[in-house]
Amino acid sequence: MLGIEEIGSYIPHGRISNYSRKEKFAITDQFIEEKIGVAEVSVKGKEEDTSDLCIKAYQNLRIKKDISADEIEVLIVVTQNPDYNIPHTSAILHGALEIPQKCACFDISLGCSGYVYALSIIQSFMNANGMKKGLLFTCDPYSKIIDPDDKNTSLLFGDGAAVTLISDNPAYTFGKFTFGTMGKDYKNLICQGNKLHMNGRAVFNFTAKVLPDDIQQVVKINNTSFDKIDKFVFHQGSKFIVDTLTKRVGLPSEKVIFNAKNFGNTVSSSIPIILETEIHDKSNKLILVSGFGVGLSWSSAVIKRV
Amino acid sequence: MLGIEEIGSYIPHGRISNYSRKEKFAITDQFIEEKIGVAEVSVKGKEEDTSDLCIKAYQNLRIKKDISADEIEVLIVVTQNPDYNIPHTSAILHGALEIPQKCACFDISLGCSGYVYALSIIQSFMNANGMKKGLLFTCDPYSKIIDPDDKNTSLLFGDGAAVTLISDNPAYTFGKFTFGTMGKDYKNLICQGNKLHMNGRAVFNFTAKVLPDDIQQVVKINNTSFDKIDKFVFHQGSKFIVDTLTKRVGLPSEKVIFNAKNFGNTVSSSIPIILETEIHDKSNKLILVSGFGVGLSWSSAVIKRV
Repeated sequence: MLGIEEIGSYIPHGRISNYSRKEKFAITDQFIEEKIGVAEVSVKGKEEDTSDLCIKAYQNLRIKKDISADEIEVLIVVTQNPDYNIPHTSAILHGALEIPQKCACFDISLGCSGYVYALSIIQSFMNANGMKKGLLFTCDPYSKIIDPDDKNTSLLFGDGAAVTLISDNPAYTFGKFTFGTMGKDYKNLICQGNKLHMNGRAVFNFTAKVLPDDIQQVVKINNTSFDKIDKFVFHQGSKFIVDTLTKRVGLPSEKVIFNAKNFGNTVSSSIPIILETEIHDKSNKLILVSGFGVGLSWSSAVIKRV
Repeated sequence: MLGIEEIGSYIPHGRISNYSRKEKFAITDQFIEEKIGVAEVSVKGKEEDTSDLCIKAYQNLRIKKDISADEIEVLIVVTQNPDYNIPHTSAILHGALEIPQKCACFDISLGCSGYVYALSIIQSFMNANGMKKGLLFTCDPYSKIIDPDDKNTSLLFGDGAAVTLISDNPAYTFGKFTFGTMGKDYKNLICQGNKLHMNGRAVFNFTAKVLPDDIQQVVKINNTSFDKIDKFVFHQGSKFIVDTLTKRVGLPSEKVIFNAKNFGNTVSSSIPIILETEIHDKSNKLILVSGFGVGLSWSSAVIKRV
């Protein structure tokens, strides 16, 4: 059975403090600590591109796991900030990591829901094609498109990358997934003229309205119950949205993780970074993951420690 | 069993004649007719974007097939020229086609190999998630990024879109797929500074070298033989590459289709346009499809008329 064997991640060392921008944006400590929950955002080096961050995540994965490039049969990158629009970033990584020719490579264009979607896409693609080892990269360095004077985005998003090794020797396997889209509202989170624009209130309202039902639904279709789920890993949109989901779904706060304080919202990498760094304790047997954002789009799943 | 139920396509009415550019590019009739095989390229209207071409392909599909938007459970767009980088074009289409919330939408970034890849991706994703109706769009209007003074690209690529209805009531089902990537050579077909650059000779050499083996391979893993295959549908890179593959694989020319004369190389739409328009005859029971290009990347499959 295929599932997640191991995860590696990379968060660039560069930081911009939100406390240093209190005056510029007329914000308070309370806003930083309770509303967005992000003290500083991570920023990649100017010379680093999306594929470079992915390579560093892969190097970190290889410290934990001896992987031979020869074994990789599929390589997927989830991004909406590729190195180039043509070719796909997965092809660039294929060359850089010296993976053999017989490897399927493609990119998936999705934002904050991308990791959960991609878990289902890579698992089903590998199953259908008899593949046993695949790499799923997530990397969406929004610093490429953020206007430093835009309060709605520049205090929130941080750069980062993650790579998930999917294999037939899994630490986690997947249950059933939910997927959804509200395409009519796509303009609430859009990149135009190489600048990201976000209607933060509209994206918040969408999440607070749609996701509680979706989370109920994914618990139901997996024939489980909230008390049996050990951890809830929501996309780290902001502290306020994670807290709001916790309250609206009625979850005990100790089961919900928020870890974006020191780097920010890393888009599709937020969930794998938590899975890698915050859920060491093997008593976490059943985990609910839920991503939401750009599209507007969402996806949830229940994953199970083997 | 899931497969292709029906295909719709749209080729914009605008044309640029290659005969009118003979002097500018110092080319002959022979070059136009035997080498590239493209007399004129299709060009979308300036006001039309990628999603607009997709909507027109969908309208053409609906002339042939009564589809209710309520039934669509997944919508995928294969493109490397989306309306915006954020959000994915599939979300924009989701809104425009008034598809219900409970629909998975994502884009796949691949070029000329994209349709064959995406047949496997959508089929496996639908199977894994118990879905019965999905839409697979391909649309990569290169006129957005072509330099009209670049002989290597402007004589060759045409705009177009296709939409393939995947369902449990198929006209064609799929056999096994092959996939491959030569990521080290990605620079031979790249978009930089919003301009497409192609090393035509390198891309030709890659195809002529790698694809004959891949085509042998896909015939073998599908436990069939060349004489049992009724039609060979290669990506329409150019007349010369289709002719070269025909010769190198040793195929009878009447089994190989070239139909790009009046619109050009429509990237990931070239194969579905042929499946829709050139293979009416139901005596075509077994069809080999093979896409190759950007990445460098390739994928082949054998599909079977039900």
